[in-house]
Amino acid sequence: MQLNIKADRLWQNLMDIARIGGTARGGCDRQALTDLDIEGRALFASWCKPFGFDITYDAIGNMFARMNGRDATLPPLVIGSHLDTQPTGGKFDGVLGVLAGLEVMRVLSENDLVPKRPVEVACWMNEEGARFAPAMMGSGVFAGMLGLEEIRASKDRDKVSVGEELDRHGYGGMPHPTDKIIHSYLELHIEQGPVLEQEDKTIGIVTGAQGIRWYDISISGQEVHAGPFPMAMRRDPVAALPTLLQGVRDIGTIDTHARATIGQLNASPGSRNVVPGEVSLTVDLRHPNEDTLTEMHRSLEALLERLQRDFAELDIRSNLIWHSPVVAFDPTLIDAVRNGVASHGYSHLDLVSGAGHDALMVARKVPTTMIFIPCRDGLSHNEAEHTEPCQVEAGANVLLSAACDILGLSRA
Amino acid sequence: MQLNIKADRLWQNLMDIARIGGTARGGCDRQALTDLDIEGRALFASWCKPFGFDITYDAIGNMFARMNGRDATLPPLVIGSHLDTQPTGGKFDGVLGVLAGLEVMRVLSENDLVPKRPVEVACWMNEEGARFAPAMMGSGVFAGMLGLEEIRASKDRDKVSVGEELDRHGYGGMPHPTDKIIHSYLELHIEQGPVLEQEDKTIGIVTGAQGIRWYDISISGQEVHAGPFPMAMRRDPVAALPTLLQGVRDIGTIDTHARATIGQLNASPGSRNVVPGEVSLTVDLRHPNEDTLTEMHRSLEALLERLQRDFAELDIRSNLIWHSPVVAFDPTLIDAVRNGVASHGYSHLDLVSGAGHDALMVARKVPTTMIFIPCRDGLSHNEAEHTEPCQVEAGANVLLSAACDILGLSRA
Repeated sequence: MQLNIKADRLWQNLMDIARIGGTARGGCDRQALTDLDIEGRALFASWCKPFGFDITYDAIGNMFARMNGRDATLPPLVIGSHLDTQPTGGKFDGVLGVLAGLEVMRVLSENDLVPKRPVEVACWMNEEGARFAPAMMGSGVFAGMLGLEEIRASKDRDKVSVGEELDRHGYGGMPHPTDKIIHSYLELHIEQGPVLEQEDKTIGIVTGAQGIRWYDISISGQEVHAGPFPMAMRRDPVAALPTLLQGVRDIGTIDTHARATIGQLNASPGSRNVVPGEVSLTVDLRHPNEDTLTEMHRSLEALLERLQRDFAELDIRSNLIWHSPVVAFDPTLIDAVRNGVASHGYSHLDLVSGAGHDALMVARKVPTTMIFIPCRDGLSHNEAEHTEPCQVEAGANVLLSAACDILGLSRA
Repeated sequence: MQLNIKADRLWQNLMDIARIGGTARGGCDRQALTDLDIEGRALFASWCKPFGFDITYDAIGNMFARMNGRDATLPPLVIGSHLDTQPTGGKFDGVLGVLAGLEVMRVLSENDLVPKRPVEVACWMNEEGARFAPAMMGSGVFAGMLGLEEIRASKDRDKVSVGEELDRHGYGGMPHPTDKIIHSYLELHIEQGPVLEQEDKTIGIVTGAQGIRWYDISISGQEVHAGPFPMAMRRDPVAALPTLLQGVRDIGTIDTHARATIGQLNASPGSRNVVPGEVSLTVDLRHPNEDTLTEMHRSLEALLERLQRDFAELDIRSNLIWHSPVVAFDPTLIDAVRNGVASHGYSHLDLVSGAGHDALMVARKVPTTMIFIPCRDGLSHNEAEHTEPCQVEAGANVLLSAACDILGLSRA
């Protein structure tokens, strides 16, 4: 027999947990470390109990459900994602990866398949970064990319700290996150983009994640009255924008993998009859190839230098505030996913992740890969977020196949 | 003898009144209908008293100091401006026009010159619009361009209304502003722009005021994630900006008199890793010729239509929210100013006013003109606002000459 996941139970679980923090418009508001988040975790734990999957926590509030293997000394294969949501989030972002992981363990267990190596499902704490910044907190501390103490000090809008909430929920005294040793990591997620849907493909084989560079740019001129001041005498920062904005766009279209986004753009003081004294904007450059990303960075630098020469009356400043290098997922795990896709005969496409995921943090520490399924209109971080039961089923089956491959279990 | 104003007393008055609301950085904060504004008016009245100039008020808080003529039935020549300032205003904006008017009446009086027609100095209430919107309140109600009751209802940030303040200061029961009949109006003002200084001219002969058109423009697209969404699938409103911003700039440079300003420019939601769902901006178009301003308006409309065709994935909307037609000052009064300039041999330039002034309101009702003097670096609405005593003296002398001309007094 070929192991197979039917959507029914998994879909029912997705709908059940979505009621915890469910919104009037069909979405979900279950932010990290709130009582609702804890209630969601308790529901997840209640589904683990009949199967005897033990629940453990670490000091940053990551939660793990464990199916024992034959050799308890071996590090586990971990499958997971997160149960916290955006304030106006959907039913699938994160939750799908956790519940599909649970489904994999349930199916193995129901088929009396006991791998040599243990399997665990991880619920990483605060992936969204909506209540507490930064995002990917739990996986970041686990991977050693973020410090436990510094993250405990992070506060929400009501000045409640992560540390206070961790202690309130009893996570504070748990083992240090970096002490946990794992073998490899798999994460199933909705794409959060439109490509699979547009290309009519069932599965995205995720080969890695885009590298990202974030810039703050300011253009300073002189704030003067919009009436008396002749155009030729002005030092108007808006004058430099056509070249700058078009130039950034050109950098973002050097190939189909490139992205260039101006998300913040603001003229100050922002009075309709005053020539702005300053324009500030952000640039977000992304590419799955580090060399190309470096080339895009150099193009932006050259553009800004040219602009400063052409607009000598303005003061143009740029600051690279963040650089997240390209992540390449583990070739062996990617092959395990490919095999799973092939064995089910699903249509597929290689993708790189454009959004942040716990897997990007975990990948800095252990072999990791991801699987994407389509979501309607590419919408995510939105109450209208949707994916079909048959798409959920396909993603879970690829996850199961890849897990079996890694665990050395026969898939047929 | 040629009547002549020496800067000394006028300059001293300017410095004295600037101490009322004087700021640490050498500017002035004397906003309309505050206790400080009333204190400034009281100081002005105290300077009128020794000369027997009667003080009267109207129901919008305009203040008039009157020098009687030989025929009390004739409507007065009015000279004036305003005593209120911006929160971080300077010593000259408005105050110069009032105190130079006073100086004209003092010199006539000291030389025992009694014209047939009365002369008055007007202190218009709330020209700045800093505490209460809109600007040019007192002159606007006087000219019938604004309604008394609607203006009384306008409130400041602390929810105090114009009406409450007018009543508190005893202006509420005074005659209706539109009842006042005047013959003609002169206003001396600093240029609030850089042209006279750049061209090294002493006097600006103001022939009128720019017409103004104000637009609110919005470009709507789709808010999506900056990572997963391919550039080609985006509906990014920023993509339309290079053409729009350059196009507006081109409209503003069709000749040296044109002005086009983008004062507000904002992308929302304003997150660095989200493609903006909307960009909003304002456009301020000005020109001293109404036909050319209409042509600029049509060019903007054509630009927006072209843009909507080229960016069919975006929704571009434009709304003309205000149109202030070109103001042409009175040719006879302009000639009186020209004669004054010529008799003193001052270097001069014809200008149109780019900023708002009480004179623009008064001009809708009676023959009006203005005289400009340079201000350092074109700076105004700024604590560093400055003009030299010799420049003040020149401006006051042209004002005196023009007044004598209008009053039929011999200038020689």
